[in-house]
Amino acid sequence: MPSPVTPPRGMRDILPADKARREALLATIRDTYRRHGFDEIETPVMEDSSRLHAGLGGDNEKLAFAVMKRGLTPDDLRSATAPLDLADLGLRFDLTVPLARFYASNRAELPSVFRAIQIAPVWRAERPQKGRYRQFVQCDIDIIGEPGVIAEIELIAATVDALDALGVPGCTIRINDRRLLTSMLAALGFPADQADAVLITLDKLDKIGVDGVLAELRERGLPEAAVAALAEVPALRAAAAGDSATSAVTADAIRASLPAGIDETAVADLAAIADAVGADVPLAFDPFLVRGMGYYTGPIFEVAHPQLGYSLGGGGRYDGMIGRFAGTDVAACGFSLGFERLVDLVTSSQDARGGSALVVDKDVDAADTIALKRMLVASGERVRIVARIKNMRALLERLEADGYTRFASVRAGERDVAALQWRALGE
Amino acid sequence: MPSPVTPPRGMRDILPADKARREALLATIRDTYRRHGFDEIETPVMEDSSRLHAGLGGDNEKLAFAVMKRGLTPDDLRSATAPLDLADLGLRFDLTVPLARFYASNRAELPSVFRAIQIAPVWRAERPQKGRYRQFVQCDIDIIGEPGVIAEIELIAATVDALDALGVPGCTIRINDRRLLTSMLAALGFPADQADAVLITLDKLDKIGVDGVLAELRERGLPEAAVAALAEVPALRAAAAGDSATSAVTADAIRASLPAGIDETAVADLAAIADAVGADVPLAFDPFLVRGMGYYTGPIFEVAHPQLGYSLGGGGRYDGMIGRFAGTDVAACGFSLGFERLVDLVTSSQDARGGSALVVDKDVDAADTIALKRMLVASGERVRIVARIKNMRALLERLEADGYTRFASVRAGERDVAALQWRALGE
Repeated sequence: MPSPVTPPRGMRDILPADKARREALLATIRDTYRRHGFDEIETPVMEDSSRLHAGLGGDNEKLAFAVMKRGLTPDDLRSATAPLDLADLGLRFDLTVPLARFYASNRAELPSVFRAIQIAPVWRAERPQKGRYRQFVQCDIDIIGEPGVIAEIELIAATVDALDALGVPGCTIRINDRRLLTSMLAALGFPADQADAVLITLDKLDKIGVDGVLAELRERGLPEAAVAALAEVPALRAAAAGDSATSAVTADAIRASLPAGIDETAVADLAAIADAVGADVPLAFDPFLVRGMGYYTGPIFEVAHPQLGYSLGGGGRYDGMIGRFAGTDVAACGFSLGFERLVDLVTSSQDARGGSALVVDKDVDAADTIALKRMLVASGERVRIVARIKNMRALLERLEADGYTRFASVRAGERDVAALQWRALGE
Repeated sequence: MPSPVTPPRGMRDILPADKARREALLATIRDTYRRHGFDEIETPVMEDSSRLHAGLGGDNEKLAFAVMKRGLTPDDLRSATAPLDLADLGLRFDLTVPLARFYASNRAELPSVFRAIQIAPVWRAERPQKGRYRQFVQCDIDIIGEPGVIAEIELIAATVDALDALGVPGCTIRINDRRLLTSMLAALGFPADQADAVLITLDKLDKIGVDGVLAELRERGLPEAAVAALAEVPALRAAAAGDSATSAVTADAIRASLPAGIDETAVADLAAIADAVGADVPLAFDPFLVRGMGYYTGPIFEVAHPQLGYSLGGGGRYDGMIGRFAGTDVAACGFSLGFERLVDLVTSSQDARGGSALVVDKDVDAADTIALKRMLVASGERVRIVARIKNMRALLERLEADGYTRFASVRAGERDVAALQWRALGE
């Protein structure tokens, strides 16, 4: 058994100053997305186990916490052949599967193009590491019912605005398209049924480099001619030479990075997105951006930050998923920010909570203390009552650390808030 | 298997208008509590199973959702003799057990008197009923480290302010004290080891009436002399005669309601609380208020509303609980509001979300549309893009229902936000 007072493994308590900072950042994100026409919704933290394990969550599905059926008998336990036989619910591992289920359930009550905000925790039973938690907050926006690139454009514009509002400068939105990836692999001669395997390897380019990717593809027994052709793709040659594989998002630059035979609709879509979001949005074409999830069907994107080796968020078009729940095809596209990573990046300015502290002598009547407090609260102040102690210095330091900006002593018989003598804290 | 697109049993999706209303109410509560000097914290939604089942949750403990251990083998399943053998975590059923654990874990970093806000969901596998959900939000404030009644006074003042700010008038705070209950039962001749059983029956007074309570106590084999003495308690006689058992909270009124021999410290504490919160706070002494949880040690309270047969919230002093986690005794007192019940009570004013809609013709360029949108967003507007459809009436009704207040048509070539002609919605 772990120490009896720590949170569960990989999970955290959030203390007042951190909580205040997190809520302020969330309010900024929420407000930006709201002004961009997105509406906040909420789903239960649990979904039916069968839905979570329907194959839409990739590797994350395996990391889902399973919730046991209620009322299980010893017989039920004995007759179970796998743990999931005993679970009917699970904690969501992302916000996309619940959104698809939500939309299918409530579409009659939603606008025909529905722009959703979800700001909520998700859970994954990952091996805990520095900065990786088993409960963490995601901030998702999704547009459902819009098949055109205007959806991607609205998502990117809103996300860039949110990053600006948070004061996280210097981010780049890397963009690619699943159709470019699959058409490129077909053009190079990879069999269609091995495309997913090739993408899994290609996704490791950042970690294992060009030589590592080519070697792994050969080890996996993929056709040598196709692997050799991949090695000659201009963007991969550039990466091998130590140049950046990313480029500007124009039709010409995309074509110049890739082999002949790529999907021209995807090229046109990416160019249209870049044109519409404008030159002030830092967009870069990354021909080897893959995104792990298999459900993407069109443009995909990720937020890269110069100081970080991992992305701050990402998303893409997933036109096939909602249909799995709704029964008919529905276009969909989303962008997810990893809130925990943003919190770490945004260096908090001074805690701006403010407030007044009443330092109360031992012999002061409780009724008098509370009357003074209520007068101050009614005037809009944040007020804390503290008992006077011998070590006034420690007391005042504590108040200052907790964001209070002034204090007054309350003596016995004091009933008039106007008569209090205020002294500044932290000066 | 349930219908594939509904939320899990007893849980709900929250749609945009409801979500906006809920967030507005939560902001009101949060702001009121913050001004009263409480600081918001957050704990993980899961706690170690052994902690949740440590006997501090009463009946709620039995309703906890259990989270399975990861990596269970078929052997593990076969050798389990009870479901909880397979669970290491559980979803919290209230916010009090997590708070006690939080405080024990983090007390070195908290002020010596710690005032906590927790606004968060909890889960109980209850039989779903109208208005009773398996995931619901609680709003708790707690004061830890203050043994005197100033804690109760601050809690009641903050709660009454929050109810006022929400626009829920007419509430009464019913108050009693566990020490009064136990001293009364001792004075009447009930054996100390049967006090809990008597309280469980007494707690049903509202439902089964005085005769029902006395009959049940006799059925349970409690001493006839004590039951007969209970029947003569002035407040119970008043209730039997159809009069209210509640009275003003003064020492004289409390003594007049109860038999001789009751705990005089409790009488003095209740009177001091009433004196300090002032005549404008609607406080009533309810000698038969019990509160289900066994962990209460002093004053207890509940919010009663004239239109409702159930309470909107409640709390009390629980000086023994934190010590179970912290190792040393720590005074504690809390008040919990049931948010779902408040949401139902607060009749929402008109949705005040506001905003501007751009009704876009089919041949308008995406880049032009997004440029117009960004100009409006930058000026602080909430903006939704909608494609023009034949049924404009339905489109405008939808926008109005979603809180938008004006719209403008966008024609091909339109790039100037100042040239848009706005028309009001909903007039």
